[in-house]
This record gives sequence, C-alpha cells and structure tokens, in this order.
Amino acid sequence: MIPEISNVIIENVLPEIDSGRYTVKRTAGDNFRVQADIISHGHEVIKAVLRIRKQGDSQWTETEMTSIDSDRWEGSYILMENTTYEYTIFAWRDPFLSWAEDLKKKHNARQDITSELLEGKKIIREAVTRANKNDALFLNKILSFFEKELEPFHTTEDLIKLVDDVEAKSKNEKPIESQLKRMKKLLQELIQEKSVIKPSSDPINEIILGNELKQVMMKYPDRSDCGEYDRILKVFVNRKEAEFSSWYEMWHRSQGTKEGKSATFRDMTKRLPDIQNMGFDVIYLPPVHPVGLTNRKGPNNSLICPPGSPGSSFAIGSPEGGHTAVNSELGTIDDFRDFVKSCRKYNIEIALDLAIQTSPDHPWVKEHPEWFYHRPDGTIKYAENPPKKYEDIYPINFNTDNKEELWMEIQTIVRFWMEQGVKIFRVDNPHTKPVYFWTWLIEEIHKTDPDIIFLAEAFTKPKMMQLLAKAGFTQSYTYFTWRNFKKEIEEYFTELTRSDVADYMIGNLFTNTPDILPAVLQNAPRAAFKMRAVLAATLSSCWGIYNGFELCEGTPIPGTEEYMNSEKYQYKTWDWNRPGNIKLFIKTLNKIRKNNPALHKYRNLSFFIAENDNILFYAKYTENLHNIILIIVNLDPYKKQEAIIHVPLKRLDIQQEETYQVVDLLTEQKFYWKGEKNFISLDPENEPAHILRVNKKSYKEQDFDYYY
Amino acid sequence: MIPEISNVIIENVLPEIDSGRYTVKRTAGDNFRVQADIISHGHEVIKAVLRIRKQGDSQWTETEMTSIDSDRWEGSYILMENTTYEYTIFAWRDPFLSWAEDLKKKHNARQDITSELLEGKKIIREAVTRANKNDALFLNKILSFFEKELEPFHTTEDLIKLVDDVEAKSKNEKPIESQLKRMKKLLQELIQEKSVIKPSSDPINEIILGNELKQVMMKYPDRSDCGEYDRILKVFVNRKEAEFSSWYEMWHRSQGTKEGKSATFRDMTKRLPDIQNMGFDVIYLPPVHPVGLTNRKGPNNSLICPPGSPGSSFAIGSPEGGHTAVNSELGTIDDFRDFVKSCRKYNIEIALDLAIQTSPDHPWVKEHPEWFYHRPDGTIKYAENPPKKYEDIYPINFNTDNKEELWMEIQTIVRFWMEQGVKIFRVDNPHTKPVYFWTWLIEEIHKTDPDIIFLAEAFTKPKMMQLLAKAGFTQSYTYFTWRNFKKEIEEYFTELTRSDVADYMIGNLFTNTPDILPAVLQNAPRAAFKMRAVLAATLSSCWGIYNGFELCEGTPIPGTEEYMNSEKYQYKTWDWNRPGNIKLFIKTLNKIRKNNPALHKYRNLSFFIAENDNILFYAKYTENLHNIILIIVNLDPYKKQEAIIHVPLKRLDIQQEETYQVVDLLTEQKFYWKGEKNFISLDPENEPAHILRVNKKSYKEQDFDYYY
Repeated sequence: MIPEISNVIIENVLPEIDSGRYTVKRTAGDNFRVQADIISHGHEVIKAVLRIRKQGDSQWTETEMTSIDSDRWEGSYILMENTTYEYTIFAWRDPFLSWAEDLKKKHNARQDITSELLEGKKIIREAVTRANKNDALFLNKILSFFEKELEPFHTTEDLIKLVDDVEAKSKNEKPIESQLKRMKKLLQELIQEKSVIKPSSDPINEIILGNELKQVMMKYPDRSDCGEYDRILKVFVNRKEAEFSSWYEMWHRSQGTKEGKSATFRDMTKRLPDIQNMGFDVIYLPPVHPVGLTNRKGPNNSLICPPGSPGSSFAIGSPEGGHTAVNSELGTIDDFRDFVKSCRKYNIEIALDLAIQTSPDHPWVKEHPEWFYHRPDGTIKYAENPPKKYEDIYPINFNTDNKEELWMEIQTIVRFWMEQGVKIFRVDNPHTKPVYFWTWLIEEIHKTDPDIIFLAEAFTKPKMMQLLAKAGFTQSYTYFTWRNFKKEIEEYFTELTRSDVADYMIGNLFTNTPDILPAVLQNAPRAAFKMRAVLAATLSSCWGIYNGFELCEGTPIPGTEEYMNSEKYQYKTWDWNRPGNIKLFIKTLNKIRKNNPALHKYRNLSFFIAENDNILFYAKYTENLHNIILIIVNLDPYKKQEAIIHVPLKRLDIQQEETYQVVDLLTEQKFYWKGEKNFISLDPENEPAHILRVNKKSYKEQDFDYYY
Repeated sequence: MIPEISNVIIENVLPEIDSGRYTVKRTAGDNFRVQADIISHGHEVIKAVLRIRKQGDSQWTETEMTSIDSDRWEGSYILMENTTYEYTIFAWRDPFLSWAEDLKKKHNARQDITSELLEGKKIIREAVTRANKNDALFLNKILSFFEKELEPFHTTEDLIKLVDDVEAKSKNEKPIESQLKRMKKLLQELIQEKSVIKPSSDPINEIILGNELKQVMMKYPDRSDCGEYDRILKVFVNRKEAEFSSWYEMWHRSQGTKEGKSATFRDMTKRLPDIQNMGFDVIYLPPVHPVGLTNRKGPNNSLICPPGSPGSSFAIGSPEGGHTAVNSELGTIDDFRDFVKSCRKYNIEIALDLAIQTSPDHPWVKEHPEWFYHRPDGTIKYAENPPKKYEDIYPINFNTDNKEELWMEIQTIVRFWMEQGVKIFRVDNPHTKPVYFWTWLIEEIHKTDPDIIFLAEAFTKPKMMQLLAKAGFTQSYTYFTWRNFKKEIEEYFTELTRSDVADYMIGNLFTNTPDILPAVLQNAPRAAFKMRAVLAATLSSCWGIYNGFELCEGTPIPGTEEYMNSEKYQYKTWDWNRPGNIKLFIKTLNKIRKNNPALHKYRNLSFFIAENDNILFYAKYTENLHNIILIIVNLDPYKKQEAIIHVPLKRLDIQQEETYQVVDLLTEQKFYWKGEKNFISLDPENEPAHILRVNKKSYKEQDFDYYY
C-alpha cells in the first residue's frame, strides 16, 4: 500500500535523447560530461557518482560528480574505445558529511555538541567495519581521540600532547604515522601563528572536521539512503574519423582520359596522389555496380539514350549482377580490392554508395519479385515522385511479406563490401525506406564492427533528417548548400552543433553534389568557391566536395541546380589542372584542419559579432584553450567587405590590456591585436576569408632558460 | 531476428513532463492542446488522431489532429471534468489519401492514370466492406462511375448524363439522392462557368478527387499501416478554483476585540462580511490545533515565554489533542464546523494548514515515539536548521520503520478535516519531507476526492519547488515577494507561466506572509502596497494577502523580514478600519479579476515593451481575444514615472489605423489610443497602475438594428 520510497530523486539527465529511446553519440577520446538534477528533501549533504561501463560488462566504473548549480550536478569520463557504453547516475545522502556540516555550524555558533559527538562516533564506528586495515586503524585512533575530546581540553598544546600520545602508541604502523605527522605539522604551524586563521583551541575544526578524516571516511561512505536514476542510458563511441574527415566525391567513370569511354579502377588509382595532395582522406564513390539497359537514361537525364551511353550509376543491376558485382567497365572485383589497397597507401578510405534500388534488369527482379511493388496489371512499378518519374529504377518494398530475407540480403551486401575493405557507407535516399530498417541494420553491423561509418543522404524534411541520425546514422548531409547568408548560417549551425541535435548527428558539409550546383556557385568567380570551401571546412569538422568543385566548375542546366553534361549520365573527362582551379587553396585548407585540433571537433562552434551583415565571424577552440581558431568570412564573393569584429576576450581568456598575435593560416600574415574590437578587411580579389590562430603571448626573453 | 516495424513514428509530444513520469495539470473547461512530431518515410499522406479518455475507461475518444508545421501536428480536446484523463496519439499512412494525392499530381500533369484508377477502385472496394449501408451504396455508385470513367469521356455534359443515370437508378434511396443532388448542382455551375476554375472536362478532379468521396472515405479509413505513441500520458484536471482564487490569510487568534485574549471561531465569523466585501474567496487558517506548553515561545520568538502567552500555532499538540483537535481557545470542533458553514454562505472556502510536526506535548510523542528522531541519550530531537533551533517543535521521521502506520495516520487527518468541510490544504514546509510521501498522499486523496486542492509552502530551492508541484501539489508559493524589478519580474513570470513549469505548477502569489514582510513593504507608503497587490492579483490568477496587508502594516523587527509583535507568538487585536487602509482598492482589484475572464487563467501572461525600466507592461487575454487586459505598473512607489508603451497590435488583432478605446478599470477613466506607441504617466500619489480593458471598436450607428 505504501510505496518503497527513495529520498534522493535524479532527473533531467543530459545528454539523454528522448528519455533514452535513442543512443547518444560521441567520439573516441571525448571527455563525456553528464549532468543531472539531484534533489532531496531537508538539508542532508548529497554525494553523487556517474556510473559508466562498456555494454556487456556487469561492473560499473564510478566517477564523482560535483555540484555546479543549485541541485545541478556534473560528472565526466573519458571515452576511449570505439564501442557502446552504458551510463547512469547514483546518489546518496551522506550521513558523515551531513553530520559534519551540522556539527560545524553548531560548533562555530558555540552550541553544545555533546550529543553530536556521540552521533559522530557511531557513524565512524560503522565506517570502521567497512574500512581496510590501515584505514580502520586510523579511524580507531580518531575514535579514541573523540573519547578524549569528550573530556574537553581547550588549547592546541593539549592537543599536540594528545597527538604525541597517539603517535607513541602507533609506532611502526607506517601509514598512520604519516597521517599523524601531517596533522602534527599543521598544529605546530597554528601554534607559531603562521596560519591566518587561529583555531589554536579548536581541535573540532582541525581534527574532526579536517580533511584527513573526511578523506578516509569518503572511502567508506554509508550509501544506504540513496537514489538511482531509473534509466540506463547508452552512448555509442565512434572512431575519430567519424568526427574528422575530408571527403572527395569521385564519379568513377569520369576519372579517365579517353573521351567517350569509362575510366577504370586503374585510371582512378592514378588520381590518388593528386587527391591526397589536396588533403582529402575519404573518397566517396557513387555505385560501382553494373547498370541496367531497360529504360536507360541518356545525357542530362534524357529519356532518349543514344547507343553507348552509360546510363545512371544508380540504376543498379544487369545480367552481370547486382549489388555485390562491379561494373565490368571499371574492372573486376579484384581491381576494386586493389584500388582500396592503393587508397590505403595514400591514407585514404573508400566510402561506398549504398543505394537500395534496382534497374529492371537486376537479378532480384526475377529471383524476388515479391520484394517490389506491383501495378494492378502485374507489372513492377518504377520509382516516381509524382509527377517525376524514374523509369530506369525500381524501388524496393521494405514492408514486403518476405522482409526477413530482404533485410538479411541487404546486411549481406554491406558485409560483402566490408570484406573488400570498405568501412564507410554513404546511404542514398535513406528517408524513403522505413526508419526502423536502418536502426536494425546499423545495430547489427555495429555489434560486430563498431568502426563502420554510415552517412545519410537525408535531403528531406528536418525532423526526418534528425530521426535518421537518432536511428543510428553516424553522419548526415545537411542543408548547408542552401544556407548563404549570415543570419541563416548562424541559426542553422547553432542548431546543428550546439543544440541536442549534436548529441546524435554530425553534419558532413558538402559544397556541392552531383545533384546540387547551388546558385552561389553557378557561373561564379573563384572567390565564391573558396568562400564556400572555407565555410564547409570550418563550420563542421567533416566536409566534402564533389569532383569538379576544385576546378571551379559552375555551369548549370539553366534554371536548375543540375550540372550541365554531368558524368551522372554520360562519359566524361576532366583536365584536373585546368586554369583557375583552387587546388592549392584546398590543400592549404585541409592542412590547416589537420594541424589544428580545434578543427577536429564538431561541437565547439561559436559565433561572434562582426559589424557587417556580409561578414561572418566564428571560432572553434579546444576546451583547454591551447588551440583557438578565429574564422572570418566575406560572404559576398563579388565585393570587398570590412568590419569591426568583437573578439570575446573573456571566453578566450585574453586580458583586456593584453596584446595578442593572430596568424592568418591561409596567408601566413601576422597581426597584433588588443582588446575586444578589431578591424578587418576582406577583398575577394585576394582571399575571401581569414583563418586566424590566436597566440596569446609572444615569447619574451624571460621565457628562455638562458635568461636566468 | 527482424523487428516488427512501424512505418509511422510519433515523438516529442507536448505537453509531457519528463517522458510521462509526472502528470500534466489543467483546469476544468480548458481546451487541451497536444502536439507531436509524426514522421514517416516516403511521401505517403499521414492522418493522426489525439486519443483521450477518462482514467479507468477502456474506450478512447478520438479527435483529429492537423499538421501545423513540417511533421508537427496538433489536436485538442475540451477537458470538462475534475478528474484524471489519459491521452496518447495514433497515426497512419492513409492509402486512399496517398493514392488521391498521387493521382492528382499525375492527372494534372496529364499522365496516363489507367493503372491508378484500378488501384483506386481496389481501395474504395475495401472501404465498402467497412461502410454502413448508405455509405456503401454511395461508394458502389462511385465504383460504377469508375467503370464508366475507364471508358473515357471528356465533357461535363457526358458526366451530367451519367449522374442522371445513376440518379434514376437510385430513386427512393434518400441519402444517396441528396449526395447526387449536390454533385449535380456543382457540375451545373461548372457548365454555366460560374466557377473560377473550369475543369468542365475533368470528372477526375470533380468526382474522384472531390470532397464528397473524400468525406465518405475518411469515415472508413484503412488504418493498418500505423504507428502509436508508445506512452499513455496523464492529465489531471483540477476544479476551476485551483486556477482562480483570491486568498486571505487570517491568523485566527488576532481576529477578536479583547486585548490579551484569543479570538474564537465566533469572532472570526463576524469578520466574514468584511473579507467577502474585499472580494476574497478563500480564507487560509494557520494551524487551529492545541499548542504545546513545553519550551513554548514568547512574543517575537523569544525563548522566554511570559505566563499567558499563546505560543506558536505551529507547535501542535497538547494533552487536549493533536492534529484532529481544535484549540479550546478558539472553540469546539462544532464551532469550527459552524465557521466553515458560515464561510460557505459568504462564498468563501477554508484552506487549512497541514503542518506535520508536533510540540513535545503531542499525543504521538507517547503513542508513537518511533515516529520521531532520537538523540544518543534517548531523548527526542527538536527541529533545527543549524544554528537555528526550534525547541518547541519535534520534526517527524518519515522514514521510520513504522512508516506504514504514520503515513496512513496523516491521510486519516486529511480525511478528518475533509469531513469537516475543508477542501483546501496549505502544506507547511513540504520540502523537509520525502517527495514520494506527497506523491502518495495526494494520489490517495484524489482517487476519491479530485476536488481537493493542495498548496505547497515550498520556500526552498527552485528545483525542489518544481518537483513538489510535479509530485502532485496543485499550487505553490513562489519567490514573488523577492522579485521587485522589471527584468527579474519579466524573467521569473515568463518561466512560471510560459515554460513547461506551467504544465504542472500554479504559482499563488502572496504579497506577504507571517514570515515575510518584504523590504519593499517595510515602513512603505500606500502606493507600495497597492503596487504589489496589482502585481500579485494580475501576474497570476491566484493571489493572496496575509491579514494586516490591507491595513498597510509594515513595521519590521529591524534588520529582518519579520513583523514586529506578530500574532505568530502573541495575542493581538487589529483596528480593521484603521486610517490609510487600502480595502477599497483591494475590493476593486478583486472585482476586476472576477469580471474579466482573461484574469481567470494562469498560462496567458505576456510581457510587452515600456520604454522605462520602472514601468512594467504586460497583458492577459482570452484565446478568442474577446477579453484583453493590459496592465501597466509603476514599480517605483515613490516617484511619478512616464513611458512610451508598445501595444502589440498584431497579436491583439488591432489594425494599424484603428482607434481603440482602453478603459482603466481601477479609475474608470477612458482613453482613445491609435497605433502601437502610446504614452502613459503613473503617479504613485494617485494610482500606481493602470488595468486597462481594450474595447476594439466602439458602437457605431450601423451596429444597431434600427439603422437598417
């Protein structure tokens, strides 16, 4: 009838996504901070620990939490491994500390404490039963000191005598000896009045309420009056590359040199030095599988397909095979494996496209007609988003009655490519498949291979984009390509990197994609490409370009966001060194990223004031402030813009009167600034941005050893 | 191995407190709005309903939700009863609507829809199996119309003929007849080109995609592809007085006329006309029980108690009895019951103090020593908050081994007073007792008596104050007495009335209490009392004063917030009509409250701009804007203050060029304002505030019947 009660209530834990329904994400090496409200009635002293363990372990590791605000606590733990951890919170009303707190107040008010001392003895006596041998000895000494205290004495001299006495009896008990020594030293200092306070007649404050006893007692707390958070939460720890990577989207078929012919994996291998030189560490490949012939699309998505046109790489499957085959134009599966190996030599990983759909010629169409949607006349439905039609593609019915086999087949495909050395999957259109399918697939893969990274091409409504990330996707595409102006950039990236969204989603900022040549880049000057590259590479810790961006390619099909004559539908060759390219700029940008730890993290973005709506000012810095990067971007690629910018001195721990150096890592120019407000000028004819590292103090002669 | 999937995901439901751990609170008559994210893959059309039922019922009532933003939905339901309701959300991908949506896009793009029409027939045919007789007939007609449509015809004339045909066959089937009539009328209008659009050759848009068919189909939706929110949430609906009441705290013993003697219940009855005249509808009484003799406190909380001193009413219990007895000074339990009855005649309710603590002379001390805390010497501990001591009071150990009996005893006490006619309990110091005790007690009481109101005297840390409200308390005291300046008032009351805190807590704003004579009222002019009364009475829908406030009593024990010579510790008499009182002002204030529905609600407070830091400007208005109250307060009781105030025309639905009348309900002055910015001047010598009712249009001759 009466409920079992807990006197300690733990609530409002952060991070926590939808009351623990979803798993929080972090990156190996992160200092994981957990906060909670911990509330109890009355005025007992609360102690709290963050409990954490690897999933599957039975034992918790505990780290102490500290009070950071009224009834608000924080604890932290460094997450080292690429795996799933569980965490929760435990707290208790500590009898010893509560007693000590009351004793202190009463003693300082010179109230009678006879009864309190008796209570204290009881608490310490109980701790003795839990203590190890040495600590038990120490606590027993304290208890015998209590006995003496109860026959009151009033000078420190008396006390010293007492300690001497205890000391004499404790000969040859090493740890006790050192504790007593420290105690004695303290008391002697007090006698000599070296100490500012003079509690020379106050053994209560010095011994009973001192740190010595408290520290030993805290090793054996009485946790019986406790509360536990009623959920066990999870945090999945990604490998570091999930939070820090630079992507190069390479449309395989355009990497060769022969007009009207596909490139091969070998042609692609030849491009690796160039791509590595630009500083990219992930190459993302659109589907490399055989392409269907039925309703194959011609150049620029035409319904008329001239003979010899390669079709869309996304119309997957032909009699050659389906999702586990490679297009014979590119080579064999062995060639693919060799390409992956070559990439590895250049410290480049492959991200493979996972586009779960087929051409009408995919083997599944015959083997598993039940996996597709059927029209009343029995034919299979092609993909459409009315009134748009994709006649060369069949979508898959994920809710098919035979979904067990379908889902397992898709898992098999992923594992097949993992065996070929692929550890990153870029998932095409995940928002057209059931969310729980992704939850299941990613969980299954991560059970055995937590190092696999999934990027969601979630160009859909915001809540679905977020839901896919909650469901398990490591990274997501974002609306970055459509955020051009100061206010919208500030709002959007504050939401992405500083709200709870950052607890489960990392936005990978692509400047362009095969489907998106944004207005800002259409027939635009180099400055526009540089400006967008700086934004992508510094607003997030993960960014990417689609090949051609480095060449400032910007010719659209008029009135659309589509590239003219894109390799999406035709063979193509590029002059990878064509005049006007910004490869050197991109190389510098990626080098800056690599050299500055502040740019390796995603959740550390802050926007600051620039007194000009065309100038965006933001910073990323490490928690310890050892690496501070200020980024100032001229959002107008056509005109010089100037501004007074406000450097938030306090947050960066710069003194009001301090001169600090800022080094532009793009140009190696140095500036000496002082105070909050500084002037900047950015001419797109030169560079559209400053990426400034703050050196808070220059060396002075005193900084060198030989000075002394 | 493969999970059961739902294609519809429902998340982020509001209101919801801590994922449903706590019950949301509303008031009888409230339009309860519930929002949720409803997300699904692909582009199926979603339908959603809010499900609601009284706790204990098995059947849900469903009300349709509407999409209010990208993937965000809202539904509402009017909560009529003082009881607990349950609610959740159900949504599905609607095959008919999804089909119609696609059909529309394709048809409008003039694509071939043969296959789609076949699919549509199938969907409608399935609905027939669920439909009632008349609707089934109608749907079958539509199906036969489909047959004809598949032998295409292209003019509306053809269509009319078809409808005529159907009509002829449907003679004597009444409902079908009227549906067909409407259909025919629409088509005839189209022929006569009365309609703006001219789909005269478009039976698809008119019949198949028309409202007629949609409305019938929506009565029989196919809900098989659905999702349900995975929590059943609760909302407790209070009676109206929980959200709207005016409290008068009456210290019983000072209500008489004889110096040095206690008042009686009969003396108190004589005061009722005066209290009703001021407009109060709740009288809150401090404990009316026998007071202990042991360590009884003297005047002004002195340890020395002169003979004949009454002691603190909170030192409950003597040989006369405990928590179910009344102090014989005041009368008998019958007198108490008579007093409650008299109050009822004046439309006044009694709120009784529930102070769970005892004097050393309480019967429990002997009967249940195990309910108390004991010192090592075996004596019972008195209450203390070191270094403060309350020697006349014993606290209760709620975690006693015998808590079953203790908790039940307290419930018995509450029910005892309910039997005497008490329906409101003001709970003393709830934050020093376990929170779960309150959860249990309030739940138990509400199971049988949902009309009981509990006010928490939670003068403690903010999170504990909120937790007690979440645990079940209807109302709470707040920090109102310590919020004096514009910014802090705006921030605090936005948090209290506009954040999720308002989903579970109603702040009852007391201007003063026996323990709090705030600085602003100490030796202060009448304007200060009036100003604080206006704030309390209009910032919240519940307010209260402690007797003496209406007399502008403001003499403190110097350097404290305590009243000098308070009736807390001594007999006292008052001249209830002493010069300088503000009883008439309070009467007007409570009358304004009663007459204006906007002031009956708690969650409708908005702050607006006044260009002066000493002028606070806010408004309360009903959802339908029929009652708009603008409140402008001069926070400086010593000096005239003037300001330009900004009336938010758009939110109040006032046109830019419209002249609107505002009537000061305190003075009956009228002003005509126009536009956003208006000038106000408030001199504390006259009135420290405007309480303005907005009359958006004055009557014109056109408004009267006889004009026409």
